[in-house]
Amino acid sequence: MTLVQQAGRNSVYAAIGEIGDLLGDRLSTAQAVRDLHGDDLTWHEGEPPDAVAFVESAEEVSAIVKICDRYEVPVIAFGTGTSLEGHIAAPFGGISVDLSAMNQILSVNAEDLDCTVQAGVTRKQLNEHLRDTGLFFPIDPGADASLGGMASTRASGTNAVRYGTMRENVVSLTVVMPDGEIIRTARRSKKSSAGYDLTRLLVGSEGTLGIITEVTVKLYGIPESISAGVCAFPDIRSACDAVILTIQSGIPVARIELLDEVQVKACNAYSNLGLEETPTLFLEFHGSEAGVREQSEMFGDIAGEFRGGTFTWATKTEDRSKLWQARHDVFWAGLALAPGRKGVSSDVCVPISRLAECLDETKKDVVDNNMLAPIVGHVGDGNFHVLLLVDMEDATAVDEAHAFLDRLVLRALAMDGTCTGEHGVGSGKKKFMFAEHGAGVRIMRTIKSSLDPKNIMNPGKIFPDVPAASN
Amino acid sequence: MTLVQQAGRNSVYAAIGEIGDLLGDRLSTAQAVRDLHGDDLTWHEGEPPDAVAFVESAEEVSAIVKICDRYEVPVIAFGTGTSLEGHIAAPFGGISVDLSAMNQILSVNAEDLDCTVQAGVTRKQLNEHLRDTGLFFPIDPGADASLGGMASTRASGTNAVRYGTMRENVVSLTVVMPDGEIIRTARRSKKSSAGYDLTRLLVGSEGTLGIITEVTVKLYGIPESISAGVCAFPDIRSACDAVILTIQSGIPVARIELLDEVQVKACNAYSNLGLEETPTLFLEFHGSEAGVREQSEMFGDIAGEFRGGTFTWATKTEDRSKLWQARHDVFWAGLALAPGRKGVSSDVCVPISRLAECLDETKKDVVDNNMLAPIVGHVGDGNFHVLLLVDMEDATAVDEAHAFLDRLVLRALAMDGTCTGEHGVGSGKKKFMFAEHGAGVRIMRTIKSSLDPKNIMNPGKIFPDVPAASN
Repeated sequence: MTLVQQAGRNSVYAAIGEIGDLLGDRLSTAQAVRDLHGDDLTWHEGEPPDAVAFVESAEEVSAIVKICDRYEVPVIAFGTGTSLEGHIAAPFGGISVDLSAMNQILSVNAEDLDCTVQAGVTRKQLNEHLRDTGLFFPIDPGADASLGGMASTRASGTNAVRYGTMRENVVSLTVVMPDGEIIRTARRSKKSSAGYDLTRLLVGSEGTLGIITEVTVKLYGIPESISAGVCAFPDIRSACDAVILTIQSGIPVARIELLDEVQVKACNAYSNLGLEETPTLFLEFHGSEAGVREQSEMFGDIAGEFRGGTFTWATKTEDRSKLWQARHDVFWAGLALAPGRKGVSSDVCVPISRLAECLDETKKDVVDNNMLAPIVGHVGDGNFHVLLLVDMEDATAVDEAHAFLDRLVLRALAMDGTCTGEHGVGSGKKKFMFAEHGAGVRIMRTIKSSLDPKNIMNPGKIFPDVPAASN
Repeated sequence: MTLVQQAGRNSVYAAIGEIGDLLGDRLSTAQAVRDLHGDDLTWHEGEPPDAVAFVESAEEVSAIVKICDRYEVPVIAFGTGTSLEGHIAAPFGGISVDLSAMNQILSVNAEDLDCTVQAGVTRKQLNEHLRDTGLFFPIDPGADASLGGMASTRASGTNAVRYGTMRENVVSLTVVMPDGEIIRTARRSKKSSAGYDLTRLLVGSEGTLGIITEVTVKLYGIPESISAGVCAFPDIRSACDAVILTIQSGIPVARIELLDEVQVKACNAYSNLGLEETPTLFLEFHGSEAGVREQSEMFGDIAGEFRGGTFTWATKTEDRSKLWQARHDVFWAGLALAPGRKGVSSDVCVPISRLAECLDETKKDVVDNNMLAPIVGHVGDGNFHVLLLVDMEDATAVDEAHAFLDRLVLRALAMDGTCTGEHGVGSGKKKFMFAEHGAGVRIMRTIKSSLDPKNIMNPGKIFPDVPAASN
């Protein structure tokens, strides 16, 4: 250990001491707790923090950040640990701030169709709480993530095609900034032109500009009528063409999800669906009874044009729940195809006009390289995931997986798409940031440096590594 | 003139010389041209720039900004000059960059429902161009503003309740940054979680962080069926209550606009509408034929609950156009109530649950102070404008107008609203920024200073003046 490194360790110990004085036994340095907070479900290497702080208020977060600012010690926000690109790892050590105990729903403003929650509230908890109000919160990533985490990664899910992502659905945030100051990013009015959009700057900033402690989000009335079902297609291109025409026709479809034949097979086995094993769309329509009928008839006509099979309804609530639970379980269904392998979920998004082409080329890449990799997509948004099932003991397979993912991202970028539609950059995608944003990366870095000059907020994420100077 | 001021003037002359070499007779220092570019329709004092550059490309804008960066000379972007809070004034002199000749529509991607235009393209020009595609661009501020200007002020209009504002509808921007670098803020995919949301940071930044040269916006299919009409109410509160229930019921109303009885009277006179002079909602429904019928029936039931009159249809296209042209002309209709007076358009927005209360108190303030001030609102969003008609020769009346506007903003802020829903801060609202954002202003200022350290981009706007140090 060099002298500089030793000085760094001494700072960490000093910070831990002060935070311990503040939190008592809500600060943990136990190895098992640290490991849990630095590792995720993915193939990204776990890097444990030096300690984990279980916080209960924005004021506590502020006090911790002020201590870490003073000692120049990293601070990493932790919600449910379900992010997919290594967001929660602590490559430079530091303090993991676990917000899961900040799980109070602070207010539901039914008239304004919004609510304010602490950052640790999960999406399922919120919808459970809303059950009797006639309102719901539509953003649904696969995991039961916390709203703070979902805001941080600009998450979305199956409902985004109709209801938007966290970008569109966060009204305001309370955030502890890198110097410990607590700000609220916006008022609760639906519109504002009063200065820079700090809300949208913080949404998707992955804990690198501050720690979100409260989130105000939009809510929606539970539709009078909901219908869902599945429609099989002979190939991916036909399914994509049906999706494009559905979107272009302005049918306000609430969900339109593509599963390729490998994924359908996985779901049949895992969730007992009994579907024909061919590319399949899962759909849901929201509206009045007449509106839903009209939407599904219009979709039926479009599906027919592209050789889709009969639209099979799931009219009963339990059938609908089973369908969407199966959709949310695709990750686990995929893993079950090859026990012992790691699941690596990719996440590109392209303009919908390029979706069929991007999916076709990607599917060919999977087949040509004999990969086991089911595909599932939020195709109404041009967003899809290839779940690579990788034997981590097989170094060649790991290399091939990396090469495949690089090709996938570069393919999406060449089509004016993005390296991540909803998972975020973390450490896994940072090498693509220059390819995607060019000089924009410099602008982002300037903002980061100005707000967090000591680089204590989730360091090592989002920004591509700069080669060390040669001297 | 002090030596420092003289040095500043010399820099301006040097910059003008270099820009003149670049643009030839597309750089003007004629007094009439300068006055036109520093003044707007409002009561804000006109402050002419030192010269006006009529640019034709992003590369020209970049070259000009680089020159201004070198000489530390202000740069002010100019679109159509229709902003309302003194945005285009040049309080520190400098170069006005007129983008109106950058009016090319660069691409329409019908499959992706988006298009890319140069910043000088106006909303009417774009919709004229789209006429045969079956698509339209919904954002409609009163003026036929440029898309660059609309992005800069985060503009909206009557359709925002259904289609959102520029915040939701800008996909990507090309921007010349303060050092002259040209960046594109995002790819064209519908979603992305790849780093900071530079698009949303630039939208609403009012030319203080860069000059927008290209805008990619979302488009929408022209609905199969459109119906519009008016509904009279006995008082403002009844009208507001009908609006709140309409929004809460999830009726996807495309437009829902309130005009108070003074505004209806003004419109009757100016646009020959023949309406009953009482608080009135102007509405529009978009959808399929059945959907529109269903929406309007649902609204009719709600209006009945709150003592609304019969919903009067404008089924013919020309009647509908007349209605919405009258709505867009409210500013001129208001001015015509008192020839010779200036129109001062205020712009607050509150959570919709507080709208009736805010409007009631504001109306009382108007009446109690004998002001001539029609009210019009995008009430589905909680946003409304009081058009104060002020005799600028009467110093007492001007003072009273200022005091009224202060009370109006503070009232909105106390209800968790904003000092501006869609007009922007400019110079007119900057004194309210601390009251609205608190410590957030410091974050905004840090971002501004980091990206524009010489403060050359539209200086004197958005940020509250800091008292000069006493020495």
